[in-house]
Amino acid sequence: MSNYPLLEKIQSPKDVRNFDSEQTEALCAEIREKIVQTVAANGGHLSSNLGAVELTVALHKVFDSPEDAIIFDVGHQCYAHKLLTGRFEQFDTLRQKGGISGFTNPEESEYDVFYSGHSSTSVSAACGLAKAKKLKGEKGFVVAVIGDGSLTGGEAYEGLNNADDAADNLIIIVNDNKMSISANQSSLAKSLAKIRSTKRYYNSKERVRAVLMHLPLIGIPIRNRIVKYKYALKGVLYHSSFFEDLGYAYLGPVDGHDVQRMTNLMEIARLREKPCVIHVETIKGKGYAPALADPERFHGIGPFDPETGETKPGGESFSKAFSNTICTFAEKDKRICAVTAAMPTGTGLENFAARFEDRYFDVGIAEQHAVTFCSGLAKDAMVPVFAVYSTFLQRAYDQIIHDVSLQKLKVIFAIDRAGFVGADGQTHQGLFDIPMLISIPDINIFAPASFEELGNQMYRAIYKEDYASAIRYPRGGEGALPAAYKPDGADYTVLESETPAKKLIVTFGRTFCNAYEAQQRLAKAGVAVSILKLNKIKPVNPDAVRYAAGFDTIHFYEESIKTGGVGEHFDLLLAKEHYKGSFALHAVEETFVKPASVEEQLKEFGLDTESMVEDLK
Amino acid sequence: MSNYPLLEKIQSPKDVRNFDSEQTEALCAEIREKIVQTVAANGGHLSSNLGAVELTVALHKVFDSPEDAIIFDVGHQCYAHKLLTGRFEQFDTLRQKGGISGFTNPEESEYDVFYSGHSSTSVSAACGLAKAKKLKGEKGFVVAVIGDGSLTGGEAYEGLNNADDAADNLIIIVNDNKMSISANQSSLAKSLAKIRSTKRYYNSKERVRAVLMHLPLIGIPIRNRIVKYKYALKGVLYHSSFFEDLGYAYLGPVDGHDVQRMTNLMEIARLREKPCVIHVETIKGKGYAPALADPERFHGIGPFDPETGETKPGGESFSKAFSNTICTFAEKDKRICAVTAAMPTGTGLENFAARFEDRYFDVGIAEQHAVTFCSGLAKDAMVPVFAVYSTFLQRAYDQIIHDVSLQKLKVIFAIDRAGFVGADGQTHQGLFDIPMLISIPDINIFAPASFEELGNQMYRAIYKEDYASAIRYPRGGEGALPAAYKPDGADYTVLESETPAKKLIVTFGRTFCNAYEAQQRLAKAGVAVSILKLNKIKPVNPDAVRYAAGFDTIHFYEESIKTGGVGEHFDLLLAKEHYKGSFALHAVEETFVKPASVEEQLKEFGLDTESMVEDLK
Repeated sequence: MSNYPLLEKIQSPKDVRNFDSEQTEALCAEIREKIVQTVAANGGHLSSNLGAVELTVALHKVFDSPEDAIIFDVGHQCYAHKLLTGRFEQFDTLRQKGGISGFTNPEESEYDVFYSGHSSTSVSAACGLAKAKKLKGEKGFVVAVIGDGSLTGGEAYEGLNNADDAADNLIIIVNDNKMSISANQSSLAKSLAKIRSTKRYYNSKERVRAVLMHLPLIGIPIRNRIVKYKYALKGVLYHSSFFEDLGYAYLGPVDGHDVQRMTNLMEIARLREKPCVIHVETIKGKGYAPALADPERFHGIGPFDPETGETKPGGESFSKAFSNTICTFAEKDKRICAVTAAMPTGTGLENFAARFEDRYFDVGIAEQHAVTFCSGLAKDAMVPVFAVYSTFLQRAYDQIIHDVSLQKLKVIFAIDRAGFVGADGQTHQGLFDIPMLISIPDINIFAPASFEELGNQMYRAIYKEDYASAIRYPRGGEGALPAAYKPDGADYTVLESETPAKKLIVTFGRTFCNAYEAQQRLAKAGVAVSILKLNKIKPVNPDAVRYAAGFDTIHFYEESIKTGGVGEHFDLLLAKEHYKGSFALHAVEETFVKPASVEEQLKEFGLDTESMVEDLK
Repeated sequence: MSNYPLLEKIQSPKDVRNFDSEQTEALCAEIREKIVQTVAANGGHLSSNLGAVELTVALHKVFDSPEDAIIFDVGHQCYAHKLLTGRFEQFDTLRQKGGISGFTNPEESEYDVFYSGHSSTSVSAACGLAKAKKLKGEKGFVVAVIGDGSLTGGEAYEGLNNADDAADNLIIIVNDNKMSISANQSSLAKSLAKIRSTKRYYNSKERVRAVLMHLPLIGIPIRNRIVKYKYALKGVLYHSSFFEDLGYAYLGPVDGHDVQRMTNLMEIARLREKPCVIHVETIKGKGYAPALADPERFHGIGPFDPETGETKPGGESFSKAFSNTICTFAEKDKRICAVTAAMPTGTGLENFAARFEDRYFDVGIAEQHAVTFCSGLAKDAMVPVFAVYSTFLQRAYDQIIHDVSLQKLKVIFAIDRAGFVGADGQTHQGLFDIPMLISIPDINIFAPASFEELGNQMYRAIYKEDYASAIRYPRGGEGALPAAYKPDGADYTVLESETPAKKLIVTFGRTFCNAYEAQQRLAKAGVAVSILKLNKIKPVNPDAVRYAAGFDTIHFYEESIKTGGVGEHFDLLLAKEHYKGSFALHAVEETFVKPASVEEQLKEFGLDTESMVEDLK
């Protein structure tokens, strides 16, 4: 017999409406089981998805999507939604090449309204869609589901601040799981916690709601009666002034694992004539003991044993190398501070946090603040290191220009997940950081190929460079490096062919290992190729360009978007040297790279060893 | 006798401390007079600066800068500060080449802590600086002065949300003038208005403060007494839960034109053992009748008659052409919406706002929200046009990638002030938008050289293109266009030399007029030059490249940062055509361009007619 007797029968989310409470409970159990088993096999986001199971079921019981649009912020809570909207059969392909995405994806389903992957955008998107529906006279609600973590991002606040009093088709669900990705340290979090602990208010509200729940919630006259009733009772209801000051009707808090109570509140929200916030309390990792015990480890996780929750011991990674490096420096240098936007685990800052608590700052999912905060620290001669994924640094582009570069302040950007990121796919690729940073004055960019080099470059950024520096390193570990390769802190490194070569590979970062392997294989085939490895990719050392200009044929391999990357710039520098040979640039054409393994992605864009061998032989 | 007997004697801000109330009043009058006279001559920000005169004097009476750091958000309120910190003598050079900046500028004075120019950064910068002082055991307060308008920007909220309970050296002044740049429409604004109108609370607070004011505010025991007293009284004080929920002690509101009352509250804030918010109410344009009557017109203004407030009638401008264009389209096409981030006047949207109120959205200084909100509108087949200055669009880089490009939504970016902006200087140059957008998939970029072409390209963006489009146009008006020049909606336009030419100028946008003039002058000197004008700069039409490849010598003129611009990309495309001639790229090297006239800036970077003639003769 199937493990998923209810799930497999669901053709459309409408089917869940007729489930009674017993069936609903069983359905939620099936969803949890399917999520745990799939993430155990494929990796993915676990804790947050387990926390949102009942919430998602409640949403699909009350709202009629796709006419009603449900927008999941950041997409860390969309797995149950995927299982209920026709993707149960394909769910085993989660995050695999050609499979279904780990985030919402409109190309995949009409039930996925927007791509999500970056935080704090859902309210703004929902405001726009709700307004469009109003302007066009269309029916349907727009529901944004946003976690308390995403509420630490400034855009969420900009969105909330633009509530239109008349947007009675707009409902915001605050999914309050008391965490963002790591434990949520912000002031707002404390404020939400205060609301939760105010039991007196909570209970009085519960009582009022209990009365409301027994009214038949249909028809205009009754709606008006309820609304008035609620207004009259406002004084005795808990007053969450934060959301109400911003123009919303505030409903809750409600137990986010009680489908009936949630659907009741959602029904009230449908009837209100102004935008509503429903405050839902959920438990991250709910229903799966290992995730409950350590929700952060299970936030985003690789494959694990579903029985025990154990993962294979992780290999060495650039993130760990960064962790070791920054701790080593911070031990000796009291100026060094570390800043993260809610990613202490992902970026490897846990050790730093434990050892140098006073110099460690988790600012929430607030990359803009993180960068300007670093400027403030640097202004008084501290040395702030902002550890951030390439894709999320995009959020702080203006602050890098206005608050770091223009101010000539020494802020260090430790850019993790630069280049292909594998299964996270379109929303998360680290392919824009080079075009983003390359045109900004007074920022150095380094690209290590090994852990040791990461340390060298960090040293150089902190102690040798005058201004800001970015060190971009890939997701995962080291490749196979030449035995003789020893990072020496130089701007570039040459790996000569053993026999005189007329062909040159230019590259940097992770793909250096591919180039080295290609060089060896080509040598065996009688093709002499030298390698120019750029260690500092901005500015490019003119001597490196002059060296390259001595070759007849240059192949430049760049794990980045091509337009505005290092390769184009290098080509221009070659032209200044009156280079007349051939120059081929292999990089990522303007596109959003879909989920696959990093190896598959390198191959797809011609940056793997095999492609290099083909290009040069 | 001098008009400024007090001002001209001030050597350091410390001097204002000893001024009695009569002298203080006279000083404020002098500051106002000096500001009005200077802005009347040079242009600049008037209304906001007039509103902050007493506030600035109060700040310098209480705080001992530069040991205490005063950080002015966005810099629209720093003129009085400049006059009190050693820049009275140079103030006549405000916003002129080689003169003093219209914004705070650390290169100019140790009293200017950070560059400012973009909104909503001050709290984050202050948090960083305050923390650095704590870590280093340094004395001194850090005071951020932020307007209610800047509080509509998400980063301000990210900053406020990261208040450290222990940051007793951090003070936030909320300068509430009930406007941002235009009238402030946000929910938060309404909430502040509610506070203001709650007179009962206000009065009870006033009474409490009146008592406090008579205590000698010195010494730890007394501080403790005061703090306890205030805590005990908390219940009767007005409870501004917004800031208090975020972890701040909240003081105010206080009349921002009453120096004594403000200094009293600032003294209390110095003694509090947690971060404080002081809510100051000011009047934009205070003390100058024309600005009081129309504070928005006088927010940022060109030279005017100080007696009457009259400005010369403005010439035609690209902003006006945009205004006409979008109204014309919106009249016929109900899908067209216009979005601005608090700049309806600057971007020319006032007419649209008046005529199409339901499709007009001023979202506050919230560029991130603006872009994602546009995505929401576009998702339901509306046609949103976000009118924004180039420099401010930087704030939404990630949203352009994640919420527009990835989603393949048709959002139109009307990018005003693209290129040199003249007197606003370093913080405001529109020189990054091309490198910013060029590497993002599925965004067209157009660059009109005339008003008519702006209309053509807007038509094309709305009705002919599939995805997002950006139309970038300069500050100011049209140059001298060829009589025969007729925009035809093509990707590029060729202006052949009358005699066969081996030299080619490639350019786009405003500098096309310079190229045309250079062509004529060179022809008279016997030098035949053709012109390739790119109308669509992304993607570049391959035929345009093939055409260019037929010339021996190509000079590319680009009013943008060079690295990652169109020119570098064009060069690469030429290489693909195996171009062997010479290619010279004239653009802006990586730098922040200082205040001067646009003409001076074009000349400085070799983009004026004269430079072109020199290059090609």
